[in-house]
Amino acid sequence: MGSPVPPVRPPHSLGAAIASTECVLCGWTPPSSWSAPAVWLEATHLASLRQSQAMEGNPVHRVSAGDAWSSSMHPDIESERHSQSFNVEELTNILDGGAQNTALRRKVESIIHSEPELSLKDNYFMTQNERYEAAIKKKFHILMLAQRLGWSEGSSELQYASRSVSGDLGFAIHHIFQKTIRSLGSEEQIAKWDPLCSKFQILGTYAQTELGHGTYLQGLETEATYDAATQEFVVHSPTMTAIKWWPGDLGRSATHALVQAQLICSGARQGMHAFIVPIRSLDDHSPLPGITIGDIGPKMDFEHTDNGFLKLDHVRIPRENMLNRFAQVLPDGTYVKLGVPKSNYLSMVVVRVDILLGEVLPLLQKACTIAVRYAVIRRQSRLRPSDPEAKVLDYQTQQQKLFPPLAMAYAFHFVANNLLEFFHHSYSFILDGDFALLPELHALSAGLKAMLSDFCTQGVEQCRRACGGHGYSKLSGLPSLLTRVTASCTYEGENTVLYLQTARFLIKSYLNTQKSPGSASKGSLPQSVAYLTAPDLARCPAQTAADFLQPELYTTAWAHVAVRLIKDSVHHLQTLRQAGADEHDAWNQTTVIHVQATKAHLYYVTVKIFTEALEKLESQPAIHQVLKRLSDLYALHGILTNAGDFLHDGFLSGAQIDMARKAYLDLLPFIRKDAILLTDAFDFTDQCLNSALGCYDGHAYERLFQWAQKSPTNTEGNPAYEKYIRPLLQGRRARL
Amino acid sequence: MGSPVPPVRPPHSLGAAIASTECVLCGWTPPSSWSAPAVWLEATHLASLRQSQAMEGNPVHRVSAGDAWSSSMHPDIESERHSQSFNVEELTNILDGGAQNTALRRKVESIIHSEPELSLKDNYFMTQNERYEAAIKKKFHILMLAQRLGWSEGSSELQYASRSVSGDLGFAIHHIFQKTIRSLGSEEQIAKWDPLCSKFQILGTYAQTELGHGTYLQGLETEATYDAATQEFVVHSPTMTAIKWWPGDLGRSATHALVQAQLICSGARQGMHAFIVPIRSLDDHSPLPGITIGDIGPKMDFEHTDNGFLKLDHVRIPRENMLNRFAQVLPDGTYVKLGVPKSNYLSMVVVRVDILLGEVLPLLQKACTIAVRYAVIRRQSRLRPSDPEAKVLDYQTQQQKLFPPLAMAYAFHFVANNLLEFFHHSYSFILDGDFALLPELHALSAGLKAMLSDFCTQGVEQCRRACGGHGYSKLSGLPSLLTRVTASCTYEGENTVLYLQTARFLIKSYLNTQKSPGSASKGSLPQSVAYLTAPDLARCPAQTAADFLQPELYTTAWAHVAVRLIKDSVHHLQTLRQAGADEHDAWNQTTVIHVQATKAHLYYVTVKIFTEALEKLESQPAIHQVLKRLSDLYALHGILTNAGDFLHDGFLSGAQIDMARKAYLDLLPFIRKDAILLTDAFDFTDQCLNSALGCYDGHAYERLFQWAQKSPTNTEGNPAYEKYIRPLLQGRRARL
Repeated sequence: MGSPVPPVRPPHSLGAAIASTECVLCGWTPPSSWSAPAVWLEATHLASLRQSQAMEGNPVHRVSAGDAWSSSMHPDIESERHSQSFNVEELTNILDGGAQNTALRRKVESIIHSEPELSLKDNYFMTQNERYEAAIKKKFHILMLAQRLGWSEGSSELQYASRSVSGDLGFAIHHIFQKTIRSLGSEEQIAKWDPLCSKFQILGTYAQTELGHGTYLQGLETEATYDAATQEFVVHSPTMTAIKWWPGDLGRSATHALVQAQLICSGARQGMHAFIVPIRSLDDHSPLPGITIGDIGPKMDFEHTDNGFLKLDHVRIPRENMLNRFAQVLPDGTYVKLGVPKSNYLSMVVVRVDILLGEVLPLLQKACTIAVRYAVIRRQSRLRPSDPEAKVLDYQTQQQKLFPPLAMAYAFHFVANNLLEFFHHSYSFILDGDFALLPELHALSAGLKAMLSDFCTQGVEQCRRACGGHGYSKLSGLPSLLTRVTASCTYEGENTVLYLQTARFLIKSYLNTQKSPGSASKGSLPQSVAYLTAPDLARCPAQTAADFLQPELYTTAWAHVAVRLIKDSVHHLQTLRQAGADEHDAWNQTTVIHVQATKAHLYYVTVKIFTEALEKLESQPAIHQVLKRLSDLYALHGILTNAGDFLHDGFLSGAQIDMARKAYLDLLPFIRKDAILLTDAFDFTDQCLNSALGCYDGHAYERLFQWAQKSPTNTEGNPAYEKYIRPLLQGRRARL
Repeated sequence: MGSPVPPVRPPHSLGAAIASTECVLCGWTPPSSWSAPAVWLEATHLASLRQSQAMEGNPVHRVSAGDAWSSSMHPDIESERHSQSFNVEELTNILDGGAQNTALRRKVESIIHSEPELSLKDNYFMTQNERYEAAIKKKFHILMLAQRLGWSEGSSELQYASRSVSGDLGFAIHHIFQKTIRSLGSEEQIAKWDPLCSKFQILGTYAQTELGHGTYLQGLETEATYDAATQEFVVHSPTMTAIKWWPGDLGRSATHALVQAQLICSGARQGMHAFIVPIRSLDDHSPLPGITIGDIGPKMDFEHTDNGFLKLDHVRIPRENMLNRFAQVLPDGTYVKLGVPKSNYLSMVVVRVDILLGEVLPLLQKACTIAVRYAVIRRQSRLRPSDPEAKVLDYQTQQQKLFPPLAMAYAFHFVANNLLEFFHHSYSFILDGDFALLPELHALSAGLKAMLSDFCTQGVEQCRRACGGHGYSKLSGLPSLLTRVTASCTYEGENTVLYLQTARFLIKSYLNTQKSPGSASKGSLPQSVAYLTAPDLARCPAQTAADFLQPELYTTAWAHVAVRLIKDSVHHLQTLRQAGADEHDAWNQTTVIHVQATKAHLYYVTVKIFTEALEKLESQPAIHQVLKRLSDLYALHGILTNAGDFLHDGFLSGAQIDMARKAYLDLLPFIRKDAILLTDAFDFTDQCLNSALGCYDGHAYERLFQWAQKSPTNTEGNPAYEKYIRPLLQGRRARL
């Protein structure tokens, strides 16, 4: 299988090289092809100065351009940065995958933030229509920038540019459309369509989901019936539930749709195939004959995306518009299968990995940044009567709210990158025709997508609520982080469905260890489930709280619980089968138990990856120390919230749970000291955070007050006064 | 203390009597003072026919007025209602607190739904400004209706009217303003201001929270300094953080604010007092001198409310504008304290009880209704290869998602009503000057507000996600239920703060049992903590899964765990004190443990109330049976999600947890049979649900498609085409 695979964001490798001519001020100038406005040069200069300060160990001052108060630091946040137990810049470099990446990212951010067209500032005041228009405008401007600056398709620059505007861009699905043609199209088809996509001479969408059908692809109803007389396919929505629903870029933008439809030829149904269907006129954008098309209306978020619907009424397309790398229909209607499109399968995997790093994890990191910063500005009540009001971060309950999400924000960084590496590793085998790693890759990516999106959503909401009333204001940035991240629990595979896919892999792996003792050696099991046959302890050896700070100990504890639950899962399935249930009933009646086991397995995997990642950082002891506390907290938080699973067979005793709790609670004040620095290290610009509460300088209240003035509720007048309030106040009600 | 107390919604008593003249068609006509339009009479007639059908045991058909497809039932939901294991109407009557209440509620709903001005249909398409105007308009129309129909202030009719429009009304805080004057004002002040409020000649807001201050009232910064020379108070915001922030009705509506401010007179600070401050001109609504005022901008929800800000620059008000029932300032500036405003404290309690029944619980009940109905319409995958696609409600994992929230929706109904009864009971003592029940009332109302709002929020989000992608569409109604209910975790007391207030009561109660063995008899402890001294078992006696269906058994299990955790809580506090920590440090370092104990206590309380409520329904065996399954599920779900707490000291063994899990999983298919009926029993009209997914007739997809057509994204044109898409498609980008 040699078809191209969608490009993956490479966080560990530097994409396009930095331009070669050095500026005397800041070590970099834009390419000569690009004429920079003065404001941009200034921004670049400032950014680079900040960067060079950072290199010397000073904190990186992120300020909101144009905010008058940004020149000063709020003393309550400044004091948090006084003594640094580790080098923040070094940690940022680790997160970026190298200091060059940090430098490149900051340069891109400076460029983006100097363009007023790319500002996010008015987002919270916009209607859905305005958000859509703004996202198209931003995409348009970034395409222009890319052209001028030579940022190539899929380059790091473009990925950093997208991060800078929080992915608030149009035409995201156009790229999926293009990638799918590259995966499923023949060489001729790619030659025809790919340049049209790259030059935006057409705009594509990927139309799979239907009003009544999602996860279960075989259930899709849209039909493409071959008509040999005209050598055309007739694409049709036979029912209300067959209407395509949700595809992004479909509602108001796309000119072409890649429609997944049931192929019917020579009187037989051949299953799902992909068809390129022109839907809007290239002249005036009006819907083509037979096409009913529009936007699906208001959503919880993703207002910048025009998710749409598409109803096809016997729409005719030429035979050449069926993507035919793996199957084709001959002119006479004969169906010919040419292979199995595993690359299609693989692109599903890569999208899941991709969204974790690009769309899910940054939202949790931003929420942590905002909530932790605000928690050192907000003062409330007194710890003791004689004290001034305390920073809310000094309360144990606040630490208990914010530090587990913070620990996850770091844990999942290493987990998602590990998964990406495993993808690249597997991919090289797959290119050589060796599909042995595919089941494990599928199980891991499905399960980790489900787990990380679940936990990131919980974490964002916890951060939001930890900001009290102000966390409910959109100006805090937190509501939109929540309404956006919670979508990731549903899109690209509903999480319960994904957990159960991983469960099947786990059960199969476990049964393999039982079937043939010869092949059940550790070596023959996929790496992520090798622990199923590892030696196991019946009891945890911990004797003190401090013992629970040993990665070996808590990783083993998680392995023990995961193995026990997977065995339990298999046992329940087999018991039902032996009692006479058929395999499908038995499966359905045990799915709750399978999900429980799968979650334990995934927690084990994430604990293991995080601890192994830290081993590689032992040469940076200060950073190692601070991250190890997060790793400890992450593992222990999981043990305490799932204590029943550890106590169930006596692996942990009640006394040991108390030790783990003590170890956990004792970690909180240590993490407290470093909390601001740990969120600074994510290095989000103020413009990208777009939060009145969470800016680097800590001036939360001033910004909240200032931003509120710009709300349409304050600028557009109040028609309700003349219509209702005035008549009411002036007693005219009775006369109406 | 004889001051009037805010009226409480009386769910168990019929408010104003139903009008006396009977219609020949439907047993009721509007009062003669009101001239009903034809459409209204028809609606009333239909509603009454439905009601009489219902009385005969037929299902109550709730249809969306004006939807063509509502005349037919979707077969997949019709089949769910074929055989009814209990009488749905009887259950509705129980929830309403009597058949007369059901009848009255339905009559009010018919009136409300026949008024086009009161429709919620366009809510999902509106901007914040439009939502505000619509809420004012609705309030205005309901006031007119009330006047015509003789619905009195605080009547059941007005409460049902508010329920019918999902509380989407303006001037909610005006009523708090009025109630506070009644509580804290002198007789003269009440005589002056109360009629102005009732006639809406002024519009009030209650301005307590400040930009930098919420929960900790002593920290409020706004000052009211008495100037004896002019006999005025000078009300002033001395800092940015002192700006009043969040008060409802303040942003764009109110003419007067009840400002909580630090009283300064004769050179001394006297603490918080309430002042009536005119803020807008009664002539033209413009802000008065010294007043800076506006809306706080976009929020996660509550867009219908104009939460506002208020900055006071040395605003002078007459001495008479300080509410002086409990304290006054004499003309010369002498401060005189006249008592302790316990009624103020009590009104905080009543607001918490009130929001549970009026604002929090209905949102969970609606979410359950929508999600369960959609789950029998949505078909996905096959349970076995030969079957048609299955209703998603037939999957165990879907039942596991939806039935715990459904059980909570019933449990919390009985819990909130029990709390209300306890409030009334306590209040009669308090009126007689006996405050003995106040600490328990405070602890229960604080804790239950926190617990119920937490669980309802989790439940709504679980229901939303259980609807897959469509749960993300605002048209499903679910996103707005979530964004609204999650606010209740913060307003009227942040939940963690409330849990800790209950914790203090629990610790005090427990220490009382230890201090004086003589007074530690069961009788002397407040009722809700009497179990602290009840005989306890060291081990649960359950031997089979069926044993876990005994209310006595699971209530005892919850009591055991709660007592153990409260003891643990006290033990940790005392250990730290003995190790030398001062009381404040010791408290802060154990708050996470106190919250854990408090949650167990509250779960015990709710299990106990639910089981006791069911005992009273034994004369209705069919209803008793179906609700007992929910009670069992509720208790067992709690045990399983907190299994560690039950295993910790060996009260339950691992084998017993497995029995409990079996009992729990075995309940799911039984509840499955009745699930649609259990949500029908909540008896929400389609108009009030306002959900494309959740209507009574099951036509989810048709409605989703139809409603989407009306979205401004489809009706307002696409300016992005001419500006960006057309230039891009036609290759003009390069030239720009």
